[in-house]
Amino acid sequence: MNWTIKKALIPVTNGYATLDVQVVDGMIAAIAPNLEVIGTEVDGENKLLLPGFINAHTHSSEHWQRGVIPPLPLELWLANLYDFTPLDTEQVYLSALGTAVETLLSGGTSVVDHLVLIPGQELETIAITVRAYREIGIRAFIAPLIQDESFSAGIPSGEVEQIHDPYFRSTSETLAIIEEAVIKFHRPDEGINILVAPTGIQLCTDGLFTGCIELSNRYDLCRHSHLLETKAQEKLAQEKYGCSGVEYLNRIGYLSDRTSLAHCVWLTDADINILAETQSTVVHNPLSNLRLGSGIAPILKYRQAGVNVSFGCDGASSNDSQDLLEAIKIGSILHNVTELDYQYWITPREAVEMASLGGAKGLKIDDKIGSLSVGKQADLVLYDLTHLSLLPRTDPIGLLVLGRPHNVVSSAWVNGKQVIANGEIISINVAELRQELFNRSQWKTQQKSAGVMQIESRYRQVMGL
Amino acid sequence: MNWTIKKALIPVTNGYATLDVQVVDGMIAAIAPNLEVIGTEVDGENKLLLPGFINAHTHSSEHWQRGVIPPLPLELWLANLYDFTPLDTEQVYLSALGTAVETLLSGGTSVVDHLVLIPGQELETIAITVRAYREIGIRAFIAPLIQDESFSAGIPSGEVEQIHDPYFRSTSETLAIIEEAVIKFHRPDEGINILVAPTGIQLCTDGLFTGCIELSNRYDLCRHSHLLETKAQEKLAQEKYGCSGVEYLNRIGYLSDRTSLAHCVWLTDADINILAETQSTVVHNPLSNLRLGSGIAPILKYRQAGVNVSFGCDGASSNDSQDLLEAIKIGSILHNVTELDYQYWITPREAVEMASLGGAKGLKIDDKIGSLSVGKQADLVLYDLTHLSLLPRTDPIGLLVLGRPHNVVSSAWVNGKQVIANGEIISINVAELRQELFNRSQWKTQQKSAGVMQIESRYRQVMGL
Repeated sequence: MNWTIKKALIPVTNGYATLDVQVVDGMIAAIAPNLEVIGTEVDGENKLLLPGFINAHTHSSEHWQRGVIPPLPLELWLANLYDFTPLDTEQVYLSALGTAVETLLSGGTSVVDHLVLIPGQELETIAITVRAYREIGIRAFIAPLIQDESFSAGIPSGEVEQIHDPYFRSTSETLAIIEEAVIKFHRPDEGINILVAPTGIQLCTDGLFTGCIELSNRYDLCRHSHLLETKAQEKLAQEKYGCSGVEYLNRIGYLSDRTSLAHCVWLTDADINILAETQSTVVHNPLSNLRLGSGIAPILKYRQAGVNVSFGCDGASSNDSQDLLEAIKIGSILHNVTELDYQYWITPREAVEMASLGGAKGLKIDDKIGSLSVGKQADLVLYDLTHLSLLPRTDPIGLLVLGRPHNVVSSAWVNGKQVIANGEIISINVAELRQELFNRSQWKTQQKSAGVMQIESRYRQVMGL
Repeated sequence: MNWTIKKALIPVTNGYATLDVQVVDGMIAAIAPNLEVIGTEVDGENKLLLPGFINAHTHSSEHWQRGVIPPLPLELWLANLYDFTPLDTEQVYLSALGTAVETLLSGGTSVVDHLVLIPGQELETIAITVRAYREIGIRAFIAPLIQDESFSAGIPSGEVEQIHDPYFRSTSETLAIIEEAVIKFHRPDEGINILVAPTGIQLCTDGLFTGCIELSNRYDLCRHSHLLETKAQEKLAQEKYGCSGVEYLNRIGYLSDRTSLAHCVWLTDADINILAETQSTVVHNPLSNLRLGSGIAPILKYRQAGVNVSFGCDGASSNDSQDLLEAIKIGSILHNVTELDYQYWITPREAVEMASLGGAKGLKIDDKIGSLSVGKQADLVLYDLTHLSLLPRTDPIGLLVLGRPHNVVSSAWVNGKQVIANGEIISINVAELRQELFNRSQWKTQQKSAGVMQIESRYRQVMGL
């Protein structure tokens, strides 16, 4: 379907211009004033047009536990998360939809879902997630979360050597599942991508990483992992490899221009240089980094070193939302307290570029999406500048990024197909989703789980608490 | 008017209870299950009832410049703000309404407006602000922002002594204006309070502070000021007084159990003890502290020392919103990165108490508002727990604080009078407000002002940049 946006406000070098945009066969065909209307006319007046953002790291199924895990550091928070995760595929479906809805309504048109797999139903989990994202029409990068070491191996041993249970599934079986998923579901042209996504150095063996590298090379897949999110993981990397986690990943060849790494809080300057050299991407998840007390990722250093940075919401039980505009705002202003010289601070326009082009680069798709450029696919968002949260009229991008806008996405398209119209998701029935989420849940109270009690004393000892 | 909420979810010690609440003559008359309906019945089913929050520090007129000031530290940001502040009283009226609307829709029922006065129209500025807050029905604490030193005196001199222009109005004239405002407008029983509010040590003389103390004692007024927001102010205090700003304020008797101090980022442990001893309140403004790169206020230390802490949005051009739930979320999770031991981290329930009772304490009105207690005035908020941003159902307070809820305030009352019903402000015409804000503004681009250029080189030199 073809369509033409008339008179949208579009950022240009020295401000904003009122321009028209023609979209033909899902691609941006022209951006100029006074264009002829091709196909449907879309009223862009008093609206800001931007490229869609990328929610570059999340775990959709955490939607079911948002708000309920008490303030705990990652390692204990994870124990709590695992304790209360009795998922079925229907829940997986609904939480993928919930994640997509919030991402879309906050300016996102793509989502990277580091997807937790139901043991024994791994392919079913992926299949139902693919279905959800196809139905709602968001561009999806599904990164099935895999590991081949058991949970307790993720906490540093400290002085005392620890014995860990073997993981319930072999490395080769896990890799076979991923390969099957790639063959069945990886359809980049249709907006569904499968990534290799070992959870991170804390729970994966060399074998799993090298198997993923091999799959990535063979099928041209992006790579996605957590990296050095916490101080505990920094300790663990030293225990496990005798070097930093980045040096290890570089040595085995995991880092590349199609590798995106969530968090990257505890990196040294040498590590940062490695990321720059390998053209790896850092996915910044400011809200979960604060919520879990992981630390403030050195994002200004990354930018100065030329490392590409994008934004993620992270899973909804460590955030506990999927509002991408919130992640972009906090992920921009947070770093002002780490650097006295304001010349390095992230401007709203830079933040928008990180969230769009930066996200696209991290998925090696910046030749196709991520900016308002003729020839790119139409992943576009129109913001209603007459909404109270974007008034009075000042700098539209300044207020979009630094304010707290809500209900401002008027229209959104993915690959040229409209997903939001008049502020409402039109591809799925949101009222029904709301009812399902309500029916399948109950109010409860935040509390520490049995799993936390089990590992807490060891955690406190190792961390010197 | 009397009314009764039936079957609301209310936090109790070990979780939540479904209870009824009777409100008689603006006061909470009973909280219990199965109460008789007195007056109008309000359906509380699937709703959470909490005391209204206090937006404990803002500057309403900054609404006109939100989103438009580039990333700059406070001192340069202020120069930018002043450059573009051509306010008239009609604008003051509209921005007070805008501030109140956003505060109310995010759970606030009180606002402390550190109000910028139009030179030569000081009483008119206060009068129109009083009118706005009376019309919309928010409980207002109007703190007319006064100073008696000129702008450039607020930046440390460094090595070279600086000569500053005298302030355009004398200290005694300023104090006379405040006294007149108190006599005309201070009506605590009607929800309108005037505070003495010297802007801070950076721009006020001893004479202004002691004059304010005298007025505060004579008319029983609360005291409000900025305090040590930036590293530059810390330097300035040492230059000006040869001691910390807190020691100075304590010496002149400004600190008390009715003194609330915005920011408090750069305090020593000794300063913190002084705040605890004097029972002063810290108003935490996490978003502007990040936006302006001021630093992370040591809020966990304050709490451990027994200092009362409340939350503020700060003015909308340093935030750039008035969403109190956002300030509460970020003001809670931000501190997890400053303290490894999670036992000290702020829980969502503690955050709610800081935002309600903490705010009330800072205004010495905690005997009247700030908690769901029989005998207190009905400043109450009902949250719709069926909104998508509060689903699935988990811990209602956990998700309200840690999530990113919007459009969730179903009803709100101030002093027993309903201000929000069915999610809409009912006391003023919001569509008209929106139109006025639109009509009186224009889109523009973030840029540094002439004022910034003037002082920038001195600022950079003094700060060692």
